[in-house]
Amino acid sequence: MPSNGGWLLALSVAALTVNTIGAATSERTERNCSVTPPYLPSTAVNTTIRLQELREHMLPMNISAYIIPGTDAHLSEYIAPRDARVAFMTGFTGSAGSVVVTQTKASLWTDSRYWVQAERQMDCNWDLETDFSIGSVAEWLIAEVPPGGEIGFDPFLFSLSDLNLEFSNRSLRSIPINLVDRVWKDRPSIRPDSLTHEKDCARCSSKSHTHWCLSGLFNMRGNDIPYNPFFYSYTLLTMDEIWLFVHMNRVTDDLKEYLNASCDGALCVQLKSYDSVLDHVKQYVATPGVKVWIGTEYTNYALYEIITPQDKLMTSTYSPVLMAKAVKDETEQRILRDAHIRDAVAVVQLLMWLEKVVPNGKETELSAAEYKDNRGPSFETISASGPNAALAHYSPTNDTSRKLTVDEMYLVDSGGQYLDGTTDITRTVHWGNPTALQKEAFTRVLMGNIEISRTIFPTGTRGVNMEMLGRRALWELGLNYGHGTGHGVGNYFGVHEWPVGFQSNNIPFRAGMFTSIEPGFYKENDFGIRIEDVVVIVPVDTKYGHNYLTFDTVSLVPYDRKLIDTSLLSSEQLQWLNRYYETIRRLLVPELDSQGLHEEKKWVLTNTEPFIHSGSSATTTFSSSLTIFLLGITVLHNVIEAF
Amino acid sequence: MPSNGGWLLALSVAALTVNTIGAATSERTERNCSVTPPYLPSTAVNTTIRLQELREHMLPMNISAYIIPGTDAHLSEYIAPRDARVAFMTGFTGSAGSVVVTQTKASLWTDSRYWVQAERQMDCNWDLETDFSIGSVAEWLIAEVPPGGEIGFDPFLFSLSDLNLEFSNRSLRSIPINLVDRVWKDRPSIRPDSLTHEKDCARCSSKSHTHWCLSGLFNMRGNDIPYNPFFYSYTLLTMDEIWLFVHMNRVTDDLKEYLNASCDGALCVQLKSYDSVLDHVKQYVATPGVKVWIGTEYTNYALYEIITPQDKLMTSTYSPVLMAKAVKDETEQRILRDAHIRDAVAVVQLLMWLEKVVPNGKETELSAAEYKDNRGPSFETISASGPNAALAHYSPTNDTSRKLTVDEMYLVDSGGQYLDGTTDITRTVHWGNPTALQKEAFTRVLMGNIEISRTIFPTGTRGVNMEMLGRRALWELGLNYGHGTGHGVGNYFGVHEWPVGFQSNNIPFRAGMFTSIEPGFYKENDFGIRIEDVVVIVPVDTKYGHNYLTFDTVSLVPYDRKLIDTSLLSSEQLQWLNRYYETIRRLLVPELDSQGLHEEKKWVLTNTEPFIHSGSSATTTFSSSLTIFLLGITVLHNVIEAF
Repeated sequence: MPSNGGWLLALSVAALTVNTIGAATSERTERNCSVTPPYLPSTAVNTTIRLQELREHMLPMNISAYIIPGTDAHLSEYIAPRDARVAFMTGFTGSAGSVVVTQTKASLWTDSRYWVQAERQMDCNWDLETDFSIGSVAEWLIAEVPPGGEIGFDPFLFSLSDLNLEFSNRSLRSIPINLVDRVWKDRPSIRPDSLTHEKDCARCSSKSHTHWCLSGLFNMRGNDIPYNPFFYSYTLLTMDEIWLFVHMNRVTDDLKEYLNASCDGALCVQLKSYDSVLDHVKQYVATPGVKVWIGTEYTNYALYEIITPQDKLMTSTYSPVLMAKAVKDETEQRILRDAHIRDAVAVVQLLMWLEKVVPNGKETELSAAEYKDNRGPSFETISASGPNAALAHYSPTNDTSRKLTVDEMYLVDSGGQYLDGTTDITRTVHWGNPTALQKEAFTRVLMGNIEISRTIFPTGTRGVNMEMLGRRALWELGLNYGHGTGHGVGNYFGVHEWPVGFQSNNIPFRAGMFTSIEPGFYKENDFGIRIEDVVVIVPVDTKYGHNYLTFDTVSLVPYDRKLIDTSLLSSEQLQWLNRYYETIRRLLVPELDSQGLHEEKKWVLTNTEPFIHSGSSATTTFSSSLTIFLLGITVLHNVIEAF
Repeated sequence: MPSNGGWLLALSVAALTVNTIGAATSERTERNCSVTPPYLPSTAVNTTIRLQELREHMLPMNISAYIIPGTDAHLSEYIAPRDARVAFMTGFTGSAGSVVVTQTKASLWTDSRYWVQAERQMDCNWDLETDFSIGSVAEWLIAEVPPGGEIGFDPFLFSLSDLNLEFSNRSLRSIPINLVDRVWKDRPSIRPDSLTHEKDCARCSSKSHTHWCLSGLFNMRGNDIPYNPFFYSYTLLTMDEIWLFVHMNRVTDDLKEYLNASCDGALCVQLKSYDSVLDHVKQYVATPGVKVWIGTEYTNYALYEIITPQDKLMTSTYSPVLMAKAVKDETEQRILRDAHIRDAVAVVQLLMWLEKVVPNGKETELSAAEYKDNRGPSFETISASGPNAALAHYSPTNDTSRKLTVDEMYLVDSGGQYLDGTTDITRTVHWGNPTALQKEAFTRVLMGNIEISRTIFPTGTRGVNMEMLGRRALWELGLNYGHGTGHGVGNYFGVHEWPVGFQSNNIPFRAGMFTSIEPGFYKENDFGIRIEDVVVIVPVDTKYGHNYLTFDTVSLVPYDRKLIDTSLLSSEQLQWLNRYYETIRRLLVPELDSQGLHEEKKWVLTNTEPFIHSGSSATTTFSSSLTIFLLGITVLHNVIEAF
């Protein structure tokens, strides 16, 4: 699925139009603050008292503004309810939002997907800001905060990179106690669940030379965050010691044993309380001669600011742990590929079931999303039909869920969390007769997917420098899409695993990295197409060179044949497609056999029959018209030469 | 031609090997500082006294190190002799070099092209540093300058961006008087030539709504810099006044009249002495409420540092003048296209002449470079045969010039300065029988050129995000090239005109920009290929979209047919090539006719005959083998289905 980050460019009008479809009552669903008294829908949250209390806390601190971001102390993409401070303050529950409060103003920034939702959930204490760039927040602050004024922030909720902004004569002040938490009386507490570790060492990576596994350093998992098996923790790793800062009441005796927590050698994990991390780092930094290495993107500012003086600090954009995690070793690659085989079975079953039941006219986006398979989702399934699919990130609700019909395209973007890997795949299908544009656009989206997938490139090439291959076939028609082209994928971790991917702030590709490739096309109020596969970066032999790489697709689900116009494909693209279908057969059929899934096998074989190039006649036509043209030129040539 | 900037990646070994070819005597040509006494070739310059004098000037300043860059106060790519401070201090005359001097050490940084030359020209006072990155200089300084020490620099010779470096506890000190100039007794003075302006208003841009032309703001030219018609000057432009700072003794009465210099309205140019620029800017900055906009890349630090306090300063990477200059208006586009027609005639004549005379065995790289045509060169011609062409920037000298033969490939990269435009074109030819690799590599370089040229992309796409199209056909074989893929081109200005191009620090493409496209391939000690064309970015109609652009090639010289393997080209590439050849005929033949150049016309017609796709049989082969494969699969399919 496309990630929620900065890469969503512009789907605004579609968002405004489509989210209102399916609203059952005639009641106005959005607030209207320009009438007296203001009109508030029943979904709006009254925030007057909490806002007043927040402002009272700001006053004695002498800050002119307070910034509240939508993340947690680990700069997570998905956050736990206890970190949903933006939702608590504003009422707005969308997944992307930042807030700034002054004594007289209160503003929420969110992207176009959520503008309607914000208008439904916020009361008139709040302004909605629609320019969702970090520069816009900075400009707002410069306009609202007088010169010399201070802007407060919770250093745990920002990275060093986040705060790399110019505020003219205003300054930022780090306030170690979160002011929202002071107001938020019934803030949920930390989950009490015990933390787990991967017991089956067949699933541990070969990076685990010792009794602890390096995958995510400790190969431990938790459920603190929706969709991601993460737990809250910090680690301080030195040449001869390992400190792990966790909520101690969640550590079982079994886990202590696993972590070798009772000794104090270089391979023993010293468990410390989560809340003591600052004190410990401060103490460590005071040791003469030490230097601490942090990533500026994913280490919070609270840790950064205690590493003083400056020459004790060493930074890189991403921490070395993140960089090591990005490259999967052989074991990790094998188990992640295995997970995709099982995932393909689940997706094939869903597609087969839909083919059967949609013509009966009883299924909806929601019932499709809830189709039972044996995966834990790695994110909220995007199940979108017709115009709803024109919203890149749409997930159905009771209000918006459309009935599925053979007259509309359907897009399903889903992923599973398996114990051995995280998956993410999107297929777009049509159960009836697609229009010419739908077929043309689908084929060109597929061409984009193939063009990236088949590219051979030197080690160290950056995704951003080749992602236009995903758009080029669309550009030829004047079409494009407003999101990124792919993101790193974790190994039973986050489905969006930075810093791998095709954006400008992603790192260069190296063998062993996994990324999604997901071009798309969205026609406002009409239909949406996305074709997403997960690929692993592999070495490739070339005629003359060394250190060249290419992509190997690990997602194993065929594309809707009905939507492919093979006459548009080049020979190379068609060859790639046929080879991919051979691979699906080779890997998926044995799994279907072993599970006794005969019907599924038949479906896969039918849907992976090789294509024949329908364009060979076109080539002939081209050649012969060229010959005629050539004759014309030759005649002209002779004439010109004659005088 | 590839520019001298940071984009030359790695041609080091080739440089070391090939530059020694042609050294006529058996005398060791490079210094040897590890013997006692050191061995110095006759080409080495004795720098002992000037270095001692420089150090004496450094002492009372209390600076630990002094940096000397290889540019001038306008951050020019080419510099006048009076600004060749690196050459004066070190003896090294290469076009790229930076120097740092401390009381005990003296180091020169240059790139791999020049390592041998530096070893020939420098005495043993100097160390040669081979890591030519700005970071390497910073690291060296941190190692050599004690904490607390100061590093002196001439603020006129650095931009703000240049000095954006971290030196831990060392600091930079701006020293307004250049210390090298104090030592350099016979430093050349400013050229006394009068400055000129474009008189013929047919050649002035339509941007000239008033009596002065905006092209380069004033449409004036000078000869202060080799290859570029620039003159030293500064401008301060406000909403109601224009100040031009020039050497007043070079301003004629005619020019004063042209510039309307005797009045003081908003469209009158107030002429001031070049050396008074700092005083005037200081005075202007002191005016209440003013704000000064500078570009951080091409405005020198001396101007930057007087704009205080900080809130009077506004910066962008490139100044607004540079941004406006990057987009050529209709008139500029027309005259630049015209210049390329005349340039093509000159290149065709050179290629024809070489075809005739090379088999006689008397011509050399130098005689080819000196072949008389009616262009003023826009840069030093690269005329390189066989292994010398494997050096991307090689220009022949008496020492290195190879005889041209029908057994070697030949690369000529040349450009002209016409009154209406600047040109830059590279063609690679073979007068005998190319090897299979030469043909394969040439064809793939051409495919790279075509793939970029034919791309359709949305306005605002960055060159860096599509430049891999120039490399992709080479990457498939494991081949690549170590320089950038193109640079902006001026209108009777610099042949390398920033900030347009395909590098990461270039600005997004907009209609009206001119850039070169110049992929290549260099086989060490063997041959070199580059195919360079200048293109203009033009709007293109697409089926569904608006604001899409593509490239229109304005260079008009056919490629060597002997080196093209058409079976490698896609139908689209072949179509592009045939359309390009049609364009060459359409535009070049009338010019050849009007000049009465019958032989040249015949040559052009022969060399632009349309190609027929030799790959159509290959497509057929693919289809039939696919059919067989398909039958095999179908049988298998039936077998599998049966049980």
